Amino acid sequence: MSVAATPADDTCIPLLEAELLRRVGSGDSLLELACLDALFPSGKLLRPVLCVESAKAVGGTADQVLAFAAGIECLHVASLVHDDIIDQDPVRRGRASTAEQYGLAEALVAGDGLSMAGIAALLGAGPAERVLHAARVTVEALRHMCQGFMRETEIRGDLTCGVPTVLDVMQAKTAALTGAACQAGAILAGAAPRQHQALRRYGERLGMAFQIRDDLLPYTTDDRVTGKTATSDVANLQPTLPVLLAYEAADETDRNRLAAVFRGGTDPVSAHRDVLSVLTRTGALTKAARMASSCAGQAHTELAGLPDSTRLAELATSAADRQH
Amino acid sequence: MSVAATPADDTCIPLLEAELLRRVGSGDSLLELACLDALFPSGKLLRPVLCVESAKAVGGTADQVLAFAAGIECLHVASLVHDDIIDQDPVRRGRASTAEQYGLAEALVAGDGLSMAGIAALLGAGPAERVLHAARVTVEALRHMCQGFMRETEIRGDLTCGVPTVLDVMQAKTAALTGAACQAGAILAGAAPRQHQALRRYGERLGMAFQIRDDLLPYTTDDRVTGKTATSDVANLQPTLPVLLAYEAADETDRNRLAAVFRGGTDPVSAHRDVLSVLTRTGALTKAARMASSCAGQAHTELAGLPDSTRLAELATSAADRQH
Repeated sequence: MSVAATPADDTCIPLLEAELLRRVGSGDSLLELACLDALFPSGKLLRPVLCVESAKAVGGTADQVLAFAAGIECLHVASLVHDDIIDQDPVRRGRASTAEQYGLAEALVAGDGLSMAGIAALLGAGPAERVLHAARVTVEALRHMCQGFMRETEIRGDLTCGVPTVLDVMQAKTAALTGAACQAGAILAGAAPRQHQALRRYGERLGMAFQIRDDLLPYTTDDRVTGKTATSDVANLQPTLPVLLAYEAADETDRNRLAAVFRGGTDPVSAHRDVLSVLTRTGALTKAARMASSCAGQAHTELAGLPDSTRLAELATSAADRQH
Repeated sequence: MSVAATPADDTCIPLLEAELLRRVGSGDSLLELACLDALFPSGKLLRPVLCVESAKAVGGTADQVLAFAAGIECLHVASLVHDDIIDQDPVRRGRASTAEQYGLAEALVAGDGLSMAGIAALLGAGPAERVLHAARVTVEALRHMCQGFMRETEIRGDLTCGVPTVLDVMQAKTAALTGAACQAGAILAGAAPRQHQALRRYGERLGMAFQIRDDLLPYTTDDRVTGKTATSDVANLQPTLPVLLAYEAADETDRNRLAAVFRGGTDPVSAHRDVLSVLTRTGALTKAARMASSCAGQAHTELAGLPDSTRLAELATSAADRQH
């Protein structure tokens, strides 16, 4: 992993954080407090950084997209707040999740409020035609995200849903929005259709790499580093890519072992241990990691025609290499 | 109550329903199914009708605002879907609520999906500058709505929060969006600022009349007519306007009776009966009904400068007179 290529080095991050603060308010109501608590300390800010860097890659400036990029982060964090209600996850970014800290009703409303603060930021500034175009692209991606979340509830406990289904869910849940963040940044900076469409594809492939890695983290990286609960996916009987790759490759004994876990009832710690042993034995962890690298490679090829895409190339590499 | 003045007579309703269908999809995924189930059979469609009639009142046409109006309805219904999760209401519009029918996680995602379908519809069609202005006004109202919902969770069980607080919550929860629906319709139809600002105030006062009546319904109208559970507010210990008016006017015995209910633990049916007896004895029901009429009167005065506002005047009257 190249440390120099993590988003934390981006110079736009302090600007983004200031913009996020400005967009959500000063915390003088319970709604604003809960939103601020969900946003700060901020995470990787991957999506807004992609938006800013995409604008720059086509000759634009951070200023042109800062409000929009902050809006995308609000919308992403809103989805995390709701996702933690659904998964009953008590921990996010190493701290109590909004639902854990404020209660279910309050977290639900905080997610809605953050989502509307995000939409307001998308519509905040810039030439009307460009803003509308970029907002439409982003809102379409958010609708895909909801499709992905719903599809995810449908495949709970289903080890036979197949790798293509899980890849579709990842595309909808994650890659659609990373793609839109890049495309919207380019649109706001005045890019030609050929450019902003290439950046959308770049963002989608990067998003796939990122999400494949995300699903590997519970099996490769300590909770204290990820800031999330490693047992969450198995506790929620969520079949993820490595699990389905293992199920495809497993012998009958290991298939039965996975099936026993995904029938539910196993305590999460034993379940996680059992799954990890099968993932290792079948080579699923290595295979998934290779898929992430391949997606990052595809992302790189989309950058060919752009004037200045060094930073975007680094971001794609780091998405496939991430350990947290 | 004037039957002729109910929104059900509006000629734009079939057009709105067709537009809603078009906006949400054909129901070939669980997300679309859950959204369609929440939208249809449709309710009063008050907010989109206000949007369309406001456009007409300033010389515009239904065509100019149909997509936007459908978007506002999606956003309103999304808030109902989430509200029923918060209040654990099993019934809405005489049918199982989305949470009851599909489960909590699914209802949460359906609300989010409907909300994004709504935003997409707001941004759907029309001259870019007008669309952006109308969308900004509407999204601001939706942020107020979230503030209202959060404030409502804070005053649960608090009989001493005061009438002004409850009126503020109503303004945020209901009147902000009815006001925005009217203002946005007028903006999309090209109204002058003086006109669309008057229509916003009209819509806000109408919204207050409507919500005051809404809080009276559990005490004046049968569940089979309202399609909602009359005991929901007391079961959730939600101090509503009539309850606070009663608390202000009550003698010590009746105050203690209300306080006993709002400490929780009383079964909902007895609680509702006890509250109703105090509301009747203190004249709170009559006083609240008079406040609704007064808000409707204020709404009427805002229509003075408009070329054709007959239908809007009828809608304000019917909001204050509604029995369901």
